[in-house]
Amino acid sequence: MRGLLSTIGDKWTLVVIASLTAGEQRFTNLLRGIDGISHRMLTKTLRDLERDGLVTRRVHAEVPPRVEYALTPLGRTLLGPINALSEWVGTHGRTILENRDSALK
Amino acid sequence: MRGLLSTIGDKWTLVVIASLTAGEQRFTNLLRGIDGISHRMLTKTLRDLERDGLVTRRVHAEVPPRVEYALTPLGRTLLGPINALSEWVGTHGRTILENRDSALK
Repeated sequence: MRGLLSTIGDKWTLVVIASLTAGEQRFTNLLRGIDGISHRMLTKTLRDLERDGLVTRRVHAEVPPRVEYALTPLGRTLLGPINALSEWVGTHGRTILENRDSALK
Repeated sequence: MRGLLSTIGDKWTLVVIASLTAGEQRFTNLLRGIDGISHRMLTKTLRDLERDGLVTRRVHAEVPPRVEYALTPLGRTLLGPINALSEWVGTHGRTILENRDSALK
């Protein structure tokens, strides 16, 4: 199961799921909203999340077709641990950044 | 700060910190205990964790020198979110693996 921790704990997995907390979103919105993620990496992460049953992909029959992504009920259960991690970053993030700065001096 | 979530939420960061829960450990023990991590990646992850102030590196004056890694008090504060993620994997891991299997069919 620890192997699964490393796939679920994958950096883009956590950030993409955190970004979908607000609700259904289009690919382009996700791409714009997530700092540093490439088109290729977002495509791969969303496809893996869909495979794992954590995200749904809905294609709206329009021209051009509109594609939207949303968390499944299983995906929403991951928000607890992700919020715990975000809160940790909120509490300790500044200390980490200060440690990184002093490591550069 | 979300940039920090993606660095802290990095897959090897979480697994290396989880592996140090048991206490001070040598590099070779960590390498053997963490499935799929390379020597290079473990070296980089430990160096980043040391830079961030989450891990200490102690060199024992022996021949050859013995090097051990341990969590700092700041590093220990990350165990809460990591345990929440590990519990999530424990609860939902089987469902994820089943979803992956059915995606292959």
